[in-house]
Amino acid sequence: MNDETPNRIARTNRSGGRAARHAARSSKLSDSMRPVRAGMTGGKYKPLSDADVLKIHEAALTALETIGLADAPPSGVAILTGAGAIQGSDGRIRFPRALVEDMLALSCKDLTLCGRDPVHDLDLSGQRVHYGTAGAAVNMVDVAGNDFRESTLQDLHDAARITDTLDNVHFLQRPMVARDIADNLEMDLNTIYACCAGTTKHVGTSISDPSHAAECLQMAYAIAGGEAKYRDRPFVSMSNCFVVPPMKFATESCEAMEICIRGGMPILLLSAGMSGATAPSTIAGAIVQAVAECLAGVVYVNAMKPGHPAVFGTWPFGLDLRTGSMTVGSGEQALLSAGCAQMHAFYGVPGGAAGGASDSKMPDMQAGWEQMCSNVMAGLSGLNMVYEAAGMHASLLGFCHESLILSDDLIGQALRCVRGIEVDDETLALDQMREVCMGGPDKPGVGHYLGTDRTLSHMERDCVYPALGNRMSPKEWVEKDRPNLIEQTIARKEAILATRSAARFDPELDATIRARFKIHLPA
Amino acid sequence: MNDETPNRIARTNRSGGRAARHAARSSKLSDSMRPVRAGMTGGKYKPLSDADVLKIHEAALTALETIGLADAPPSGVAILTGAGAIQGSDGRIRFPRALVEDMLALSCKDLTLCGRDPVHDLDLSGQRVHYGTAGAAVNMVDVAGNDFRESTLQDLHDAARITDTLDNVHFLQRPMVARDIADNLEMDLNTIYACCAGTTKHVGTSISDPSHAAECLQMAYAIAGGEAKYRDRPFVSMSNCFVVPPMKFATESCEAMEICIRGGMPILLLSAGMSGATAPSTIAGAIVQAVAECLAGVVYVNAMKPGHPAVFGTWPFGLDLRTGSMTVGSGEQALLSAGCAQMHAFYGVPGGAAGGASDSKMPDMQAGWEQMCSNVMAGLSGLNMVYEAAGMHASLLGFCHESLILSDDLIGQALRCVRGIEVDDETLALDQMREVCMGGPDKPGVGHYLGTDRTLSHMERDCVYPALGNRMSPKEWVEKDRPNLIEQTIARKEAILATRSAARFDPELDATIRARFKIHLPA
Repeated sequence: MNDETPNRIARTNRSGGRAARHAARSSKLSDSMRPVRAGMTGGKYKPLSDADVLKIHEAALTALETIGLADAPPSGVAILTGAGAIQGSDGRIRFPRALVEDMLALSCKDLTLCGRDPVHDLDLSGQRVHYGTAGAAVNMVDVAGNDFRESTLQDLHDAARITDTLDNVHFLQRPMVARDIADNLEMDLNTIYACCAGTTKHVGTSISDPSHAAECLQMAYAIAGGEAKYRDRPFVSMSNCFVVPPMKFATESCEAMEICIRGGMPILLLSAGMSGATAPSTIAGAIVQAVAECLAGVVYVNAMKPGHPAVFGTWPFGLDLRTGSMTVGSGEQALLSAGCAQMHAFYGVPGGAAGGASDSKMPDMQAGWEQMCSNVMAGLSGLNMVYEAAGMHASLLGFCHESLILSDDLIGQALRCVRGIEVDDETLALDQMREVCMGGPDKPGVGHYLGTDRTLSHMERDCVYPALGNRMSPKEWVEKDRPNLIEQTIARKEAILATRSAARFDPELDATIRARFKIHLPA
Repeated sequence: MNDETPNRIARTNRSGGRAARHAARSSKLSDSMRPVRAGMTGGKYKPLSDADVLKIHEAALTALETIGLADAPPSGVAILTGAGAIQGSDGRIRFPRALVEDMLALSCKDLTLCGRDPVHDLDLSGQRVHYGTAGAAVNMVDVAGNDFRESTLQDLHDAARITDTLDNVHFLQRPMVARDIADNLEMDLNTIYACCAGTTKHVGTSISDPSHAAECLQMAYAIAGGEAKYRDRPFVSMSNCFVVPPMKFATESCEAMEICIRGGMPILLLSAGMSGATAPSTIAGAIVQAVAECLAGVVYVNAMKPGHPAVFGTWPFGLDLRTGSMTVGSGEQALLSAGCAQMHAFYGVPGGAAGGASDSKMPDMQAGWEQMCSNVMAGLSGLNMVYEAAGMHASLLGFCHESLILSDDLIGQALRCVRGIEVDDETLALDQMREVCMGGPDKPGVGHYLGTDRTLSHMERDCVYPALGNRMSPKEWVEKDRPNLIEQTIARKEAILATRSAARFDPELDATIRARFKIHLPA
């Protein structure tokens, strides 16, 4: 639609420049020219004061020291007590402060999460921001039918294929469950296959049972073309709910995690408490508990394998305290995740939290405001990994392909905000202001900045243009038959899915995988 | 809709508590109990470093000193040069730095913009945040008809009536033009009438010609019940585009402003440059120019009347540089306004900028993400007055009643973010965590925070619940016949407009006004 918009600035200029600019806009911008990209640095929004950060840190250490965590598996008890944690007569594992600090010192700081294609590698150092999908939705939002239906493996694969085409969705963590596969091991294996066969971006997956972990590693190794290649560039990570808040290890998930750590798989240490149910109802309290739980995870991982790649996954969620239902689209949710981001920066660890999910059932105005609120705040707070950032609806119960596509526009604008305001002699533009207002020795000022070289040079490098978002005047909109955002997005989805995916596996590799595993997607 | 949602938490508790909570929720919360309110303090998001702020300040002073502003009216030339500004041979008025700093020192800092009802007074001190309407849209968005039509006086009055019912829309600046009134003086007078007759919140209006200013003041005096009463509590302010960027005074608007200053009317010093057309294309440059222009306004106002109430109205807008069309829904726009907020805080002056407007034609997902992006960033940056925050579509060309209603939910969540995260011993919740996880001497921990006194006490004070935003599960949503956000909002609008307005004038006052002025609204 935007390609059809007449270039009014260009027409005020000489045509040579216009042709060149037209050509520039038609071709995809090189990464260095793009106004936004993965890994821009956030952190200019600080919801917590320095003193608040220290208070939360202190409270988390106290919680680990005095409350500790229950339900570690026997293997975990051995690993943790071997490192210096103490198991009480109540079975809980408590963590001396010095142990936590020592393990933080050993932990992986400058983590790169690999893509299957290195162009999609995610540098999680500092406060670099990346957005992607995540979750375990059990439904697809059927936008055209105004309905919900059970999500399938094909839906998941399609989400991967769509994600592969979106500049501003930087990774694909499994956002929904393939409910059409009855066997849980086959589901886990096919989840990895369907994600990786759809995108060359980093893939996160979960493993539902420790007995599946070895096979899931084999699937990742097979896709990589061998274990050594995978260990060199592990492009599949394990999203692992290693705790059951409040302050209990998830016994089986810990066992699965141990296998994956030995197998060379990066771990997302995911603590998903619900503020008011499984975590304190206050924002500060929910952050304290999530931080304490993830610090326990840091001890666990680094006691096993110092420096093993792990993401500090404080994911506290909101609750509608009137109903006891989960809610993810609120301002409280945005604050929970932004506050967590500040704690990650304090520890200097790669971190992630949930942002960009909506409570709305459909991609409507509510979905727009909810998705932007937590997404832009996550970015401004410098969250390394914004999970659930795209396509997630119905308080995490429904995933929506159309919403995923629209999130490319939405996150593009959020990233523009993360990039921020450049201030230097050139951008302050005093000389330009002088020339425009007063002219030079032999010519008057033109009185406007339209069409100056400076203005045009900012056009491509500094501005994020929507792909589907509409900027027409009402007149033009009526003349163009009132383009409807959702109808256009459905058409875009169909176009993407009708195209042969660039991420698909080499046929020989695909045959090898299919010979080894039962793949439910048609070849 | 939310009232029908079963209270799942309550059911886990004893019924006495439930009945009490039900009663509490049915009655309107007292202002001190409300989780959000007008005038919460922002400023935790700082898009500019301290050094950047100084650079922008220096560049603005240099622009005033060396470029200055053209086109001051003769009266303005006298006022400004009388104060120490210098008119050059090119007619431009230039401002020595010391003059700007002296006038800033004299300027009104702790401004309160009055409501007709004092309960709606807006305290613009510090970084207190308020959201409201503004603009000069020439169309109404006809949501049900998927169309646009010319805006009328009745539309404006209806917008005022709707605003009066919305907790999170704190003021009504005239958002659209009454195109059904041919005579411009009658339009200006009826605009004030239609706004004030619909809401007791603060009203901003514009005056299209200096010859209208005296009559507009008379209208405000009449509504107040006399000039002295109005001067004591001026509940109508003048939104005044006193400059035509770049760096020119708007001659007639300055003349109108002088009359309003003498008449006791607060002034919004509005500089509305378009970045890339009438302001530099860079964000920093557009802010420099807007700051310079508003500083010239500060000199003008305070040279006439030291301490006269004025809002520092840096309103730089974005431009789609591909088309030369205005765009207000971008990340660049959100940064422009957030950067301005930081400059206002630097000067310690009450300030305003545009946030929350959308380029979308309809209240769709694009509208939601665009409105939230700039609204929440404006709030987090501590902007005193967020203008255009509600109901504004089509890049300011269309106003939408349904969107105005939905903005009450949207801004409510933005305000929750502005309120931020409270960190103290109670909110850190260590004792609660200990009790929930480990229990007391004679009872085990219950393992969750549901239904504790602490959790319930946070339910009302800390959480913002949507009025129209939907938090149902997919199952419940289907069972309840798939409530549609827009259909429900249209119904809400009709219900509001079917109710007799609490803001309407006393019949005797109304008769007095109607005897003195030609009022186009039916009595």
